[in-house]
Amino acid sequence: MAVVGYGHSKFGVRNDVNMAELAYEAIKEALETANLEPKDIEHVTVANAGGWSSEPLPAVVVAEYAGLTDKPLHRVEAACASGSSAVATAYMAVASGQADIAMAVGLEKMNESPTPTVVEFIGRAGNYFWEFQNFGLTFPGYYALYATAYMSRYGATEEDMCQVAIKNHYYASMNPRAQFPRRIDMETCMKSRYIAWPLKLYDSSPITDGAAAVVLASEEVAKKLTDSPVWIHAIGSSSGTANLSKRDNFTGLRAAQLAAQMAYKRAGLEAENAARYFDAAEVHDCFTIAEIMAYEDLGFAKRGEGYKLVKEGQTYIGGLIPVNLSGGLKAKGHPIGATGVSMVVELTKQLLHKVEPGRQAPIKKGMAIAHNVGGTGHYAYVTILGLEKPRGR
Amino acid sequence: MAVVGYGHSKFGVRNDVNMAELAYEAIKEALETANLEPKDIEHVTVANAGGWSSEPLPAVVVAEYAGLTDKPLHRVEAACASGSSAVATAYMAVASGQADIAMAVGLEKMNESPTPTVVEFIGRAGNYFWEFQNFGLTFPGYYALYATAYMSRYGATEEDMCQVAIKNHYYASMNPRAQFPRRIDMETCMKSRYIAWPLKLYDSSPITDGAAAVVLASEEVAKKLTDSPVWIHAIGSSSGTANLSKRDNFTGLRAAQLAAQMAYKRAGLEAENAARYFDAAEVHDCFTIAEIMAYEDLGFAKRGEGYKLVKEGQTYIGGLIPVNLSGGLKAKGHPIGATGVSMVVELTKQLLHKVEPGRQAPIKKGMAIAHNVGGTGHYAYVTILGLEKPRGR
Repeated sequence: MAVVGYGHSKFGVRNDVNMAELAYEAIKEALETANLEPKDIEHVTVANAGGWSSEPLPAVVVAEYAGLTDKPLHRVEAACASGSSAVATAYMAVASGQADIAMAVGLEKMNESPTPTVVEFIGRAGNYFWEFQNFGLTFPGYYALYATAYMSRYGATEEDMCQVAIKNHYYASMNPRAQFPRRIDMETCMKSRYIAWPLKLYDSSPITDGAAAVVLASEEVAKKLTDSPVWIHAIGSSSGTANLSKRDNFTGLRAAQLAAQMAYKRAGLEAENAARYFDAAEVHDCFTIAEIMAYEDLGFAKRGEGYKLVKEGQTYIGGLIPVNLSGGLKAKGHPIGATGVSMVVELTKQLLHKVEPGRQAPIKKGMAIAHNVGGTGHYAYVTILGLEKPRGR
Repeated sequence: MAVVGYGHSKFGVRNDVNMAELAYEAIKEALETANLEPKDIEHVTVANAGGWSSEPLPAVVVAEYAGLTDKPLHRVEAACASGSSAVATAYMAVASGQADIAMAVGLEKMNESPTPTVVEFIGRAGNYFWEFQNFGLTFPGYYALYATAYMSRYGATEEDMCQVAIKNHYYASMNPRAQFPRRIDMETCMKSRYIAWPLKLYDSSPITDGAAAVVLASEEVAKKLTDSPVWIHAIGSSSGTANLSKRDNFTGLRAAQLAAQMAYKRAGLEAENAARYFDAAEVHDCFTIAEIMAYEDLGFAKRGEGYKLVKEGQTYIGGLIPVNLSGGLKAKGHPIGATGVSMVVELTKQLLHKVEPGRQAPIKKGMAIAHNVGGTGHYAYVTILGLEKPRGR
C-alpha cells in the first residue's frame, strides 16, 4: 500500500476560513498530487477531536464541501493521535479490500473556542473525573510531571529542553506552512514565562487551526497512478491508562514503546539503534520533553540519553537522525486531528525531495518514521514509510 | 470473518452506572460469549457520538476500565450510525490482517445532559449553520419533512406510522433489555402529543443510555473459538449531504439506498425483493416514518408501498420479513453510539436462536440484515449476517 497523494493547509490562526474550507485546502492538494477526482476516492476517514465548534458532525460537513459524499465516510478520534488513527483506518480500508483508494483527512479548528475553553478541554483529555476535577491537572501540568521526573532521574536541564524548541523553530523558519516560521534563541526560550514548571511557553506547542490529507492506494492501483509512490511499511499502535497514578514511570510513554515495537516488528526492523534505518523522523513534541522521550521510546537513544541527542545536534540534518524538519508540533503547530496526517504528508514529501531547501533531509536510506501520541500516552501510533516496496506485507 | 462474541447492556435511563461501567456490561458479556479474556482482543474500536458528558475521550476510559488498553484503540463517529462504523472498522481491522480478533464497542450515555441540551445537540446533527441556526430545524422536524412528503405522495396516514410503533413496542415487551418493554395500542399512539407534526411522541425514539459490543474474528480463529460463528457476509456504507435543501426527494434516504446496493452486491444478492433472503431485519426507526422508508430503501417493498407492509402485518413474525424484533430504536431505545452494534448483537442472537420466546424469528434462510442511518442519511450502513460461510470473500 502506498501514499499516492498528500495535501497540507497553512497552519495557524485560521479565522479566514470555516472548517470545511480549511479541510479543503488539504484535500484539494491531496487530490491534485494524486491526479484524482473526488469520485475516485472510495473511502473517507476524517480525524477530528472536536468539541471546539458548534458543528458536532464534522466528517459530513468536510466531505460534502469537497464533493466526497455518496461513499463510505466516518470520523475517528484518538485524542492528539486522531490523525494517525485516520491514516491507520484508511490503511485498513484498502488492505481489507473494502476500497482500492482511500483518503485520510485530519483537521482541527481550535481557535473557534475562547482560550480558557480550549485549555479546559485539553485538560479534560487527561483523566477527567479524578485528576482534572480533583487536582486541577492541566495538560501542561501532565507533561511537567514527566519533565521533572526525567530531569531528576537523568540530569537533563531546562536548557536541554529548550534545545528542542530552538531546533524545531529553526526548521519551521523554512516551512511557509508553519504557524511560527521563525527562529528563536536560547535566551528567548529560557526567559519565556513558566506554564507549568519546568515547562515554559517555548517548551509548549500552540493552539492551532489546520488540516492535512493523504490518499492511500493498493499496490496495483498505486503503480498505475504514480511513478513515485511512498510505501507504508508498517503501522504500530497501542494505548495506555489515562490515569497517571497508575503508570510505572514518568520518563517514557509505554503506549509509544508498544506502538514502536509493533511497527518495527511488522516492518522487519530491530528496535535497537533504530535511528540507523531512517532519513528523517517526525515525532510528537507537544512539549519539548515529549520529543526527548520520543527519541528513547523509538530506540534512537538509550533510556536517559535522549536529551544528549538534541544537545549534541544529532537530530539536526547531518546528525544521527533529523527530527521534526517540519518544525514539529512546537513550531509548525498542533491542530489535534491534523497532526498525525501532517506527519505522513511531511515524511512523504521528505522522501520525494519535495520540501523547501534548508529543511530537506538527504535521502540515503529511503525510509522515514512518524510518532504520534494521544493524550499523555493514552494512544500512540508509529508509522513507517519507505521508497522501496516493503518485503512481506 | 465471523461474530464470535456479543454483549448488550440494559437500555434506558442508566444513572446507576458511569460510562465505563455501562460499556463494561456489554464488553463482559461479549468476552464471555466469545470465551475470551481482554488480553486476547487485538484491536478495539469504540463508537460514541459524545458531547453529552464531561468526558471528551471516551475510548480510553471505556477500554481502561475493561482491561482493554495496551493495544490498538480508537473512537469512531458517524452520528447515529456510529455503532455500525465501529463494526465496519473492526471488520477492516481483521480483514486487513492487522488483527485476528477485534472488538467493536458502542455506547452512549445521553441522560447526563439535561433534556434541552440533548435536543439542541441532536438538532445540530442536521445541517447546523444553515438549517438549525437559521430555521430552528430540530431532528424531529427533519423527519417530519420526510413524513409529510411521504404521506402526500403515497397516501400513508398517521395511523400507518403508528402501526410501526405498535409493532416495535409489542416486540420490546418481550425484550427485558429494552427501554420500554411494554405494549401500546393505536389510541395511545394517536392521542400522544405532537412533537413535529405529523410525528407524535410515540412516533419518536427516546433519549437512551446503553452499550453493546461484538467480537469479530478471522475465519481461521473463529473456527477454533466456536462451533456457532455468525458470518459477516457484507457491509455496505455510504454518505449524503447534510443539507436537506440539496436532496432530490424526501421519501427515501439516498445514502441508505447506496449502502444497500453495496451490501447486496458484495453479498452476491439481488436488491429486488430482497426480503426473500432474510429471516429477520433490524432497521433504523428513529421515527416511525424512517422504518417505512427503510423497507423501501432495502428493497423489501416497492417505492411508495412500504407503509402497506406494516399495515398488513408483513413485518411481524410470520409475515414477509420480521423487522425490529428487538423493539427497534423506537422501544428498545436509541443510545446513539450503541445502536449499530446493538443491531448486530440482536441479529446474531436471532440467527443462533438465543432471544426470548415470542420474539424469536423462525430461522429458515439463515440470513439477517441490519440497516443503520446517521443523521437524516448523512451516513448509512447495511450489514448482512449469515449462518453459512459466505462464498467468495
